[in-house]
Amino acid sequence: MIAGLNTSVKRRNGAEKYPYGIIVRMPTIIAVDIGGTQMRAASYAPDQIKPIKQKKIPTLASTPGGLERLLQVIEEVLPTGEDVAAIGLGSPGPLDPHTGYLLAPPNNPEWHNFPLAPKVEAHFGVPTFLDNDANLAALAEYRFGVGKGHHDVLFFTVSTGIGGGVIVADRLLQGYHGLAAELGHIIVDPNGPPCSCGFNGHLEAFSSGPAIVKYVLGELATGTRSSLKRDESMTARDVAEAAQNGDELAIHAYQRAGEYLGIGVASCLHAFDPSIVIFGGGVSQVGELLFTPFHASLKKRVFHSRYLEGLTITLAALGDEMGLLGARALAEMKINL
Amino acid sequence: MIAGLNTSVKRRNGAEKYPYGIIVRMPTIIAVDIGGTQMRAASYAPDQIKPIKQKKIPTLASTPGGLERLLQVIEEVLPTGEDVAAIGLGSPGPLDPHTGYLLAPPNNPEWHNFPLAPKVEAHFGVPTFLDNDANLAALAEYRFGVGKGHHDVLFFTVSTGIGGGVIVADRLLQGYHGLAAELGHIIVDPNGPPCSCGFNGHLEAFSSGPAIVKYVLGELATGTRSSLKRDESMTARDVAEAAQNGDELAIHAYQRAGEYLGIGVASCLHAFDPSIVIFGGGVSQVGELLFTPFHASLKKRVFHSRYLEGLTITLAALGDEMGLLGARALAEMKINL
Repeated sequence: MIAGLNTSVKRRNGAEKYPYGIIVRMPTIIAVDIGGTQMRAASYAPDQIKPIKQKKIPTLASTPGGLERLLQVIEEVLPTGEDVAAIGLGSPGPLDPHTGYLLAPPNNPEWHNFPLAPKVEAHFGVPTFLDNDANLAALAEYRFGVGKGHHDVLFFTVSTGIGGGVIVADRLLQGYHGLAAELGHIIVDPNGPPCSCGFNGHLEAFSSGPAIVKYVLGELATGTRSSLKRDESMTARDVAEAAQNGDELAIHAYQRAGEYLGIGVASCLHAFDPSIVIFGGGVSQVGELLFTPFHASLKKRVFHSRYLEGLTITLAALGDEMGLLGARALAEMKINL
Repeated sequence: MIAGLNTSVKRRNGAEKYPYGIIVRMPTIIAVDIGGTQMRAASYAPDQIKPIKQKKIPTLASTPGGLERLLQVIEEVLPTGEDVAAIGLGSPGPLDPHTGYLLAPPNNPEWHNFPLAPKVEAHFGVPTFLDNDANLAALAEYRFGVGKGHHDVLFFTVSTGIGGGVIVADRLLQGYHGLAAELGHIIVDPNGPPCSCGFNGHLEAFSSGPAIVKYVLGELATGTRSSLKRDESMTARDVAEAAQNGDELAIHAYQRAGEYLGIGVASCLHAFDPSIVIFGGGVSQVGELLFTPFHASLKKRVFHSRYLEGLTITLAALGDEMGLLGARALAEMKINL
């Protein structure tokens, strides 16, 4: 993809002076993280973790003109006088990373079955790649975060939903339709409650933030005593606060979430056998409340102790930059194939 | 690994005449399939599916001298006057494909924590690789069987146990400890019956041959009427015959096995998103009895219809040769890295 540049040059940063005295400009990567509320874009020089330029604008998903806003924010981070080697785009799914189409992004009817990456590629004349935010988070942690040096990585984002991302032998797992690593939709109990996707007993239906709240509300409805009130605006954070104040129902709600998270992760260890499991997302920030029961459950459920030998289980290291760095890593991975 | 041969030559079959008139002998691959009752060995010329020589001997797992028998059977298939490029060994697990150690093969105390591949490699002075039979079956079907042309393959052997093998983007999934793809130990119901491994609710505890028999025996013990008699020597084949003769308990036993197989495979589709799912093993030979309820369950459990678009679900194509061809494919894969 980067004609005329050999690997050692391509890997170096900034302008490179050949022995013959020719100045070669180093290609830049553009990364875009399309979130529910903000679109963030950044340009990166090779081997520099800090962006050359970055910019964020509101996504305004339900307002027409989304593609124009996306092209505009990319324009604004284009570095002056540098070639762009590739563009990486991260978005919530479902999407097809092989074709670059968004399939049915929530809250954005304009982008249903929309050729996002092809449109951006046509506009800038630069190879453009798309993948979902959980896959890119896994890739970001693998390349730049706590997964550095690992070859087999499992990433879970535990938040409003549960997303997954998997690195297998140094490669991002995408699958035939680009729908692999939907680890929140692993069935952990076929008779379990309905998931946000409508199907029963998925990991997300037990261990996501809304699942924790739903369980508490259900228990309150049956008369279970608690400091928490039956209030539809309750959040997983409210439940965590009540638990930290000793509320037994709240503590039990996180125990249950942690127990099923252990069951789901055990199955994933049996399937993928990674050397690191990384947790991101708001719910994973509550600490021992979730992770003490999680570890107990995992230990009880892993069928051979060898899976746990040398296994790192940890929180994600990257913060707000995770989405951008993941989109960047995707673009770099694709053009260095 | 094959010094002095370029790729085009290495890929061709038989002796190759260089322009300079030098005869170059083509390297042979040796494959060994170490089964519970037989050790089979074969030598293969590149790009020839039929072996040059093959030989089988009793495994006699509980009798000392297993390594000597293995070395002997390899000696007997060595082709005269040909170089051997690599040796591939397939064995029941658990084992470590990265080190070539057998960990704890059933019925063979002599080979507990035994450096099988290093011993063979040292004896013949040829790179030697080891992996488990289910992984090698997946690799064999991918290279030589019904998985040819697919890049993302899921293989299940449904037999006395349930084994799994996965090809991800044209590569065999092995994992950090070499324990990936243990798909029979995916948890399909955390409150389910104990598996042969001692842990509860695994796919193998619902859908393997012994699990089907155990369910029938349990139902008979509670007084359920059936043409089957309470007999500990009952086999899954006996249950299948009774089902084919209209026995309701027997039919229900396979329905239950198929339903849970659908749940397990659905989770695996969400995790791996393959383009083909291949079933091998004796239990998979019963046909509609298992696969009608399996398909109904899978359809009910897959959370997005896109996973099923263009997905092939089929029986394995290779017969007795599967283990040998898998060991051969492993050796070829490793030396062509």
